[in-house]
Amino acid sequence: MTNFPKPKANLSFLISLVLFFFPQTISSLPLPRPYGLRSPQHAPRFLRKFSLSNNTGRLGAPRYRYETRYFDQNLDHFSFSDLPTFRQRYLINTEYWGGPTKLGPIFLYCGNEGDIEWFAANTGFVWELAPRFRAMIIFPEHRYYGESMPYGSWEEAYKNASTLAHLTAEQALADFAVLITELKKNFSAQACPVVLFGGSYGGMLAAWMRLKYPHIAIGALASSAPVLQFEDIVPPETFYNIVSNDFRRESISCFNTIKESWDVIESEGQKTNGLSYLTETFRFCRKLESTDDISNWLSSAYSYLAMADYPYPADFLMPMPANPIKEVCKKIDNCPDGTSIIQRIVEGVSVYYNYTGKVDCFDLDDDPHGMNGWNWQACTEMVMPTSSSKDASMFPAYDYNYTSDEEWCWENYRVKPRPTWISTEFGGHGFKHTLKNFGSNIIFSNGLLDPWSGGSVLEDISETIVALVTEKGAHHLDLRPATAEDPDWLVEQRAAEVKLIQGWLDEYFKRKRKVFDM
Amino acid sequence: MTNFPKPKANLSFLISLVLFFFPQTISSLPLPRPYGLRSPQHAPRFLRKFSLSNNTGRLGAPRYRYETRYFDQNLDHFSFSDLPTFRQRYLINTEYWGGPTKLGPIFLYCGNEGDIEWFAANTGFVWELAPRFRAMIIFPEHRYYGESMPYGSWEEAYKNASTLAHLTAEQALADFAVLITELKKNFSAQACPVVLFGGSYGGMLAAWMRLKYPHIAIGALASSAPVLQFEDIVPPETFYNIVSNDFRRESISCFNTIKESWDVIESEGQKTNGLSYLTETFRFCRKLESTDDISNWLSSAYSYLAMADYPYPADFLMPMPANPIKEVCKKIDNCPDGTSIIQRIVEGVSVYYNYTGKVDCFDLDDDPHGMNGWNWQACTEMVMPTSSSKDASMFPAYDYNYTSDEEWCWENYRVKPRPTWISTEFGGHGFKHTLKNFGSNIIFSNGLLDPWSGGSVLEDISETIVALVTEKGAHHLDLRPATAEDPDWLVEQRAAEVKLIQGWLDEYFKRKRKVFDM
Repeated sequence: MTNFPKPKANLSFLISLVLFFFPQTISSLPLPRPYGLRSPQHAPRFLRKFSLSNNTGRLGAPRYRYETRYFDQNLDHFSFSDLPTFRQRYLINTEYWGGPTKLGPIFLYCGNEGDIEWFAANTGFVWELAPRFRAMIIFPEHRYYGESMPYGSWEEAYKNASTLAHLTAEQALADFAVLITELKKNFSAQACPVVLFGGSYGGMLAAWMRLKYPHIAIGALASSAPVLQFEDIVPPETFYNIVSNDFRRESISCFNTIKESWDVIESEGQKTNGLSYLTETFRFCRKLESTDDISNWLSSAYSYLAMADYPYPADFLMPMPANPIKEVCKKIDNCPDGTSIIQRIVEGVSVYYNYTGKVDCFDLDDDPHGMNGWNWQACTEMVMPTSSSKDASMFPAYDYNYTSDEEWCWENYRVKPRPTWISTEFGGHGFKHTLKNFGSNIIFSNGLLDPWSGGSVLEDISETIVALVTEKGAHHLDLRPATAEDPDWLVEQRAAEVKLIQGWLDEYFKRKRKVFDM
Repeated sequence: MTNFPKPKANLSFLISLVLFFFPQTISSLPLPRPYGLRSPQHAPRFLRKFSLSNNTGRLGAPRYRYETRYFDQNLDHFSFSDLPTFRQRYLINTEYWGGPTKLGPIFLYCGNEGDIEWFAANTGFVWELAPRFRAMIIFPEHRYYGESMPYGSWEEAYKNASTLAHLTAEQALADFAVLITELKKNFSAQACPVVLFGGSYGGMLAAWMRLKYPHIAIGALASSAPVLQFEDIVPPETFYNIVSNDFRRESISCFNTIKESWDVIESEGQKTNGLSYLTETFRFCRKLESTDDISNWLSSAYSYLAMADYPYPADFLMPMPANPIKEVCKKIDNCPDGTSIIQRIVEGVSVYYNYTGKVDCFDLDDDPHGMNGWNWQACTEMVMPTSSSKDASMFPAYDYNYTSDEEWCWENYRVKPRPTWISTEFGGHGFKHTLKNFGSNIIFSNGLLDPWSGGSVLEDISETIVALVTEKGAHHLDLRPATAEDPDWLVEQRAAEVKLIQGWLDEYFKRKRKVFDM
């Protein structure tokens, strides 16, 4: 493979910008930022569109019943600046709740980087669990997402680095802590146990919350939570290696075709009329300005396909078939002999971008410079190094380059990342040791097809810090609502989670009874 | 006892303002704020004078050898505001250190509300321990105290609520975490165990740090740390009841004389020339404007006497004899028959204010409105309710009145306290439960004469969360340097601490060796 021009080679900088947005499943760790310094081209639009939406429209009628309430939060929990409070939105359902005298549990979903109604609509597991546990359900929204906007509006909150300053994980955790403490008082539910749920970044929040606020929640289900994807705790090539392996597993020739395609596309783009040819062949709505755009567009598709490589059809942003990577590779491999690599890629990627066959042309790069919540988080705390290895990855090779990421953040946000902060705050290389010695009651659930699984906890750490790993699962599949098509291993995974949560609650009740009996 | 006029009755509002400042011992939980809304009259001067001082002058030549270094800290660890960094001062000694290959421990004293050189000079225990453990010693200064001033100077840092905003315990803990992480890297000491030490508010920081950053330190000695003195976890009358009991224990008539004295002083002040008489009798340098000033002055003395009721003479701010409360009561009780209550009080309090007999007259109220670090902390996070009970306390009775404290804070700092925040962040009523289930390796050492002991942890919580309680100890006596006059119980207490710390280290080394052997 020849050297890529510099901007393209910079696939770098883990944790993109693109919200993994698809209405029928639950989110949502963003992708590693693909190619180029001006790369966050998909994300802002989805996130913004979503953040302005409510639980109708794309989502259809709300699938679950809840009340929408608001809570005044301090913008800064850890300092006493004279800042305006903001209204945190939270969704609440008490209809199944056993009440304070029966110590009815409280299930709290740690809202992550998006509209909370979307997470509520797509976290069926929590809703399905609540009646059997007689649990209250609370979905607090993450600050700076959805309706929970400081300074009164998205425009004001996202104006500049100064208004975005308080969009951090620690502040979000403190929001949850303050909210639940207050709610428990209001419901006279101080003695009721809280169980945390979260997927993706929300799973990281759930695990961290259990560690930092053990007095507030008795356990956490952290699904697809890459808590180890910081500094050099896991190798930076992990994410793209897993995506690549997902394809190689299906077909070596598919993997090879994709791996070869970057150079071919690049060469094609340099020919006279090459960009026109590519525009037409890939069916973009307007003419390409460089092949970088295709590379980004393809990288996103492959990564999303890996995250959402579910065993049954799902209606994502675009609908997808069951085992979509298998379908992509079938398309790539089964073209007639003599089909060009470019044509094979076009066919393959149509599984992701045009499964219904109804799309006439594809948009690229809708809002490359829009302010975006996760961009900000990736440019401040959530610095997750990624690279693409020369051999194991099917993506163009590139090394992690912190400096260029730092430049990007400065240029776009006027902020300097703190790449070691998350490790300092939550534990870095010693994180598993910390879990083992100071943590308890955390489930790390992962599907090995999910490229984020490589940054999560994949082995049991102790009797109560447990890894539930499914070979064929993808990104927090377990949190989705049950379906008739669920394979046995998924049914079993969820049953194991239920049993563990039941165990936490039983132990809690036993201890409480002991206190009552005394 | 008759009703006191309103301002006097408001003894209220725990956590004063007055740094418990005396050069020869180690600090330093401030006193509950005595009487009146404009009460912080002692504190600012001591603190300010001290914060501007260095390790000469009152302290004399430094008793221990260290280098003074500085570290650039983010002013806000939990948000990304575009704020200037500040230089955190820290003292370091590596001469005893075993080095990285021998996993030489790092002893970190959690600097509290004052100049770190003063804490270093008065925490002999850590210095005496270091050689036998081959430990590095680090004394980082608490932000906004001593030389560790944001915005370049005390004047700028203490200008207003906006500049003071980042003076919080969580930010201070994060300072320690970031500093030690960076230092360990620089010394290639990532594998070296850190042991935390702290007294009073510093002890609270040490305990909280062990809970919130267990990946950073293997254990904490939290001496005289009233971690439970929040909300209604312990009764608000605790502090003054203990002070009062310290006096009653010595002599019931002494206790009664003091208890009766407030009304007598008050009545005297209302007589014609009464204030002149009191000014002269108490030997104040300038004429009293109200009897409130005497009340504050006396309350402070009694509380400090209780905190520093040590078994050997110590050179405090004013030198004091061994068992000073016994001496005060002797003076009060042993006056000739017919001596007035006021005269008895004058005699008694001279043990605190004029033990050398060299003071001609006493100053009052030197800098009542000076900005003061602990005032700010008490007006934001460190809201520790206090009251004085009608029967058990020898102080004027008063109820805790949060509202008037809130008003005081608003008037003086334009800040509103968050009285439930510390409990939310670190655990409130469930704090012992949190310790038991999620904590380990913390020593809570307390002397029962210390009025702060009532807000601390006085019983073993688990095998590794241990309370070391001495009946005759006062405020973090164990952290002071050993002296020839140390009673056996103090020698034993320190030996128990050494043994526990040794145990933490042994276990750590054992675990490390296991990893090496693998």
